Order: sequence, then C-alpha cells, then structure tokens
Amino acid sequence: MPEIKLAIDAMGGDNGPSIVIEAITECLKHPDSPQFLVVGQDDILQPLLQHYQIDKHPQIKVVHAEQVVEMTDKPGQALRAKQNSSMSVALQLLAKGEADAVVSGGNTGALMAKAYFQLKTLPGVLRPALMAALPNQQGGRSYLLDLGANASCDSETLFQFGVMGSVAAQTVEHIRSPRVALLNMGEEEIKGNDVVKNAASRLSESEHVNYTGFVEGNHLFSGKADVIVCDGFVGNIALKSCEGLATLIFEQLKSALMSHWMYRWFFRFLQKRTEKSWDRLKPDHYNGASLIGLRGVVIKSHGSASAKAFASAIRQAITEAQEQLPERIKDRVESVLLEQQ
Amino acid sequence: MPEIKLAIDAMGGDNGPSIVIEAITECLKHPDSPQFLVVGQDDILQPLLQHYQIDKHPQIKVVHAEQVVEMTDKPGQALRAKQNSSMSVALQLLAKGEADAVVSGGNTGALMAKAYFQLKTLPGVLRPALMAALPNQQGGRSYLLDLGANASCDSETLFQFGVMGSVAAQTVEHIRSPRVALLNMGEEEIKGNDVVKNAASRLSESEHVNYTGFVEGNHLFSGKADVIVCDGFVGNIALKSCEGLATLIFEQLKSALMSHWMYRWFFRFLQKRTEKSWDRLKPDHYNGASLIGLRGVVIKSHGSASAKAFASAIRQAITEAQEQLPERIKDRVESVLLEQQ
Repeated sequence: MPEIKLAIDAMGGDNGPSIVIEAITECLKHPDSPQFLVVGQDDILQPLLQHYQIDKHPQIKVVHAEQVVEMTDKPGQALRAKQNSSMSVALQLLAKGEADAVVSGGNTGALMAKAYFQLKTLPGVLRPALMAALPNQQGGRSYLLDLGANASCDSETLFQFGVMGSVAAQTVEHIRSPRVALLNMGEEEIKGNDVVKNAASRLSESEHVNYTGFVEGNHLFSGKADVIVCDGFVGNIALKSCEGLATLIFEQLKSALMSHWMYRWFFRFLQKRTEKSWDRLKPDHYNGASLIGLRGVVIKSHGSASAKAFASAIRQAITEAQEQLPERIKDRVESVLLEQQ
Repeated sequence: MPEIKLAIDAMGGDNGPSIVIEAITECLKHPDSPQFLVVGQDDILQPLLQHYQIDKHPQIKVVHAEQVVEMTDKPGQALRAKQNSSMSVALQLLAKGEADAVVSGGNTGALMAKAYFQLKTLPGVLRPALMAALPNQQGGRSYLLDLGANASCDSETLFQFGVMGSVAAQTVEHIRSPRVALLNMGEEEIKGNDVVKNAASRLSESEHVNYTGFVEGNHLFSGKADVIVCDGFVGNIALKSCEGLATLIFEQLKSALMSHWMYRWFFRFLQKRTEKSWDRLKPDHYNGASLIGLRGVVIKSHGSASAKAFASAIRQAITEAQEQLPERIKDRVESVLLEQQ
C-alpha cells in the first residue's frame, strides 16, 4: 500500500496547535504511521515540534500558512478573505493531490464552505454531508448523517445520503449489507413530512441500498440501523441535544460522587475496573466527523478535542484514505445514476 | 377555588388500567384531591377500584365507555371508528364542560387527532402543540414544544408556539418573564432555514414575548431558556434521541455496577444517599406532556408510565386546570393579534 500523506490544519480548534502536535507525536509511534504535512504558522509550530522532539522526524513536513481561520469567523468571510489560512492551504494540498486527506479542528462552517469550494463534490453528488459514528447498545457503531452541512434537503439529497452512508459503513466498518434507515417522528409509513416520505420511496426502490424503513430518535443508539439519514438541521439538533443530556447526567453523577471521600475512592476504583466497557462511550473515541461526497477525504475534529480525540480523527482520516472512500462513493453514485436511467 | 374535575382515560397506555387506578388511589390521599371521572369499561374498572378500596370513594365516578383505542390504531381510524372509546368519552366530558381536564396515556396520534377534532383550537390559535418540561442544569425546568403534533410548521405557527409556551411558563412555573428561544443548528442569526429565521424576526418584534434568540440542541438541558420552540418533527426527534442516549448510558452503568457484589452493594448505598438529587432527573417526574392551544386542558402521559409517573401527569392536569391555562393563552393570543393589526 502506498504511504498515506495527511495534511493537518494545525491552527484550528479551541485548544490551539499544541494538542494537534501532541496527537501527531502519538500517531508517529505507530509503525505504519502516515506522512504528516503540518500546515500553519511556522514560528508557532517549530517550537512545539521541538518540544515534542519531532521537528526532525522524517515523516513530518511543515507547510507554512500565514493566516488562521478563527472559530468566530463567518464562513463566507473566511472563504473570501482567508485563502492563505492553514485550513485553505491544507485543502489545497488535497485538491492538488499532494495529500490524501485533510484533518481540521477549525471552524465547522468555514471548513464545510472551503472544502465544498476547493474540492467540489464527486460527479453526480448533489450535496456533501457531515457524518459521524455513534456507539450503540449492540457494541457497534451507527453512522448518522447529515449533521449540519445542509440546513434543509430535498428527498433526492436524502436518498443520496443513504447511498453514501451505506458505502461508508461497508468500507470503514466492513458491514456487508448495511441497514439504512431514515430518521422520522414515527415508524409507520404515514408519519413525517413529504420530504422523508419521498426519500423513503426512493430508497426502497433502489437495489444499491438495503433500506429498512423509518426509525425514531431513540434508535440512534439502539443498533437497529447501521446508517441513519436525516437533514442537517435535524441531525445537528439531535446530536447536540444528546451532548446536552450527557453533560447533565455526568454533572449530576459527579456531584453525587464527589460529595463524600468514600464515594470518590469507590468511583476511582470502579472506573479502573470497568474502564474497557466505558471506553467505547467516551467522546474521544468518536471524534472525527467525515465530510463525505467530496473529491477527497476531509475529517472534522471537534473544536474542543483533546490530543487523544484528535488522534482518533487522524486515524479516521487514515482509514478513509487507505480504503479510498471517495472513489468508492463515486462508483456507487455512478451505478445509482445508471439505475435511474 | 371550585373543585377540579378530571376525566381520566383509564384504558390507555401499555400497562393497562391498573397503573391508572393505582395513580388515582395515590392522588386521593391528598387533602385537596380533585373529583375523578374514571372513563373506561365498567367490568374491568370496578374490580380494580375494589382492589384499591376506592370503589365507594365520594371523589370517584366511573363513566362507562365501550371501546378502547389500541396503541396500534391509526389516528384517522380511531377518529372515525372509535367515537365511544374511553379517550373520546373523556374528551367529550371536557368539551361539554363536565370536566376541567383530560389525562390519557393512550395512543398519542389518536389523542392529538381526537382532541383537535372534539375540542377545537382556541380563537386565533393556528395549531395545537405538544409541550413537555425538561430538567435543566440550573435546577429548574425548561419547556420544549412542539414534540410531534405538527410534522412541519410555518414561521407564524412557531411564533405562536413561543407565545403559548411563554404563557405556560408564567402560569405553571411562575416565571415572570420567561426567556423564549428558537431551537436552531447554530446561534448566529444567519444559521438555519427560512422558517426559523422568519419566526425569529416575528418573535423579536412582539412585545408579548421575551425572545432571547437561537439556541442549539445542547441548551435543551442547560437552563439558558425557559421555553424552547421548534417544529414537531425536530422536537420529537430531539427528545427521543435523548431517551435513546439515556438508555444507553444507564444500561452501561448498570452492567458495570452489577458485575461484582461489592459494586452492587455500594450502588444501593449511594443511591439512597443521593436520592434527592437524582430524583429530579427521573422520567417519573417529567411525565405529562401538555397539548396546548386547545379549548381545554389535555395531558398526555407516557405510554409506558408507572403509577407514580401517571400521578405526575394528573398533578400537571390539576395545576393547568386550576390556573386556567387555556383561558390565559386565549387572552394572550388575542393581545398578540391586536398588536399585529
């Protein structure tokens, strides 16, 4: 397998470049580590690379970029005014074929706009989608898309998301025939708005998708489907609502556990003994949303990601690049378009 | 204050009439208990009332209804074919003024359809909405609406939901000037689809609502707003996604805790010592969604509610009836319509 080259936007994210360099240092320890094109301000990156003793590492190359997209920049402004930003330069390396994937923890709106503009969608793909893996009760992962690349979608776009999500689940999760479902406010055929109803009939007609019907929100985590499709408005709100609830539950748990030394002691003991089963629920393991449907692999890391979480996003990028996910999506979309003729 | 009369659909819900009668028995212990019109099949209800020794209670009256709306009935079928169901008869008592509120744990779709048809909306109200209270990190409750009465809404309807939710938060939660927010995929003004953007400008123009802007899904539980407005498709999916995540977290916690006798022992100990702080997160305390905007108080209890949870729904009905919530919504909507002229 040819060596993978990753362009890393080292300046994005709330926690700055240090967690990015720490994550890269961690990834370099693996024997089949990729090449890293570390994109950002040279005078900030060099001292960090020296600190982690990887400034002379043969797998590391710094690519200087003068500008930085701030988390508060509006996507449109970032698109026009920040063409020499670390984010744009990283995407440019991908567009020119000098990198196989981009990882960025920067401003989500700006990344989606720039990636769409600089890379373009694959032939026949209507819209890119932001997709993430969620842990499920069956011990596996379910993909949810779109998480916010599109505020509203027509039924044809939702249908394509089903196709693209299916290819991703096959390619990355190695599921032979992924169960694709549409997120709806009920499971009966008559439920929901016209867009989901029409998407349902499109999905059930296609031979290229194993469509299994509507699922309700509680099935995001049940494992009833491998790929769950919705528009970006709904997906974004569903995921963030869950983030909010998780925060509430864990704060409550923490305050209950921290109220007495004995609880604290027991909690640490329990945490150690059950680490493995909890590990798969930790956000660190689910960091790395894929922006799919584009001519290249683009992974969005959470803005507040830790070094460990950023490393998960890097691994996601490596897998998608190795498995040539965009190429496979292109082939499937071509077959689907032929089927329609 | 005149005595409140509640019409209880005793036949709805997954757990049958016994939990309903148990909940009523519990409520009768309070000194200012309402009158109960217990609606359902006489031959099933009488033995249960005898079992709980309330068959001769002066606050209890059984109203016979031959039919039962099944959880699997389609709303349209239930509307046409089951006009003598416990659900319909209970709503009829409310429509005729013989009851002040209805509580039902039955088929949600059928209840919404029947309530809309039998009671009608308040003058000027475009659509009824299903509204529930969620616990928040500030120790209070935030209202979320719509939870599924409307698969899609125009901006005027969302605006009215903001008005109605605001009245409910004032009336039931006694918040002087409830902060009303719109649920969106971002907090910046440019985010989201046209419907939420137009609803935002309508809300910010009105003097009758304290509109505070967009909130993202994570703020459902943060306490940033007292009333959070969205269409029924989004609200339903957000709430059910949270249900799904809570199930996943608690199952994981349980399996970790049950794996050793010492964990089990500690857990029971901890549970007892921190019961009060957990109590407010328990679904039992949040049971009872209000169908607002109608000419009468209608409370939907969760299909799988326990007796304790059903009793919460009954208390919600008593409060809304005592505070004359529909009357207050009618007055506010009138003022809003005058403002627009």
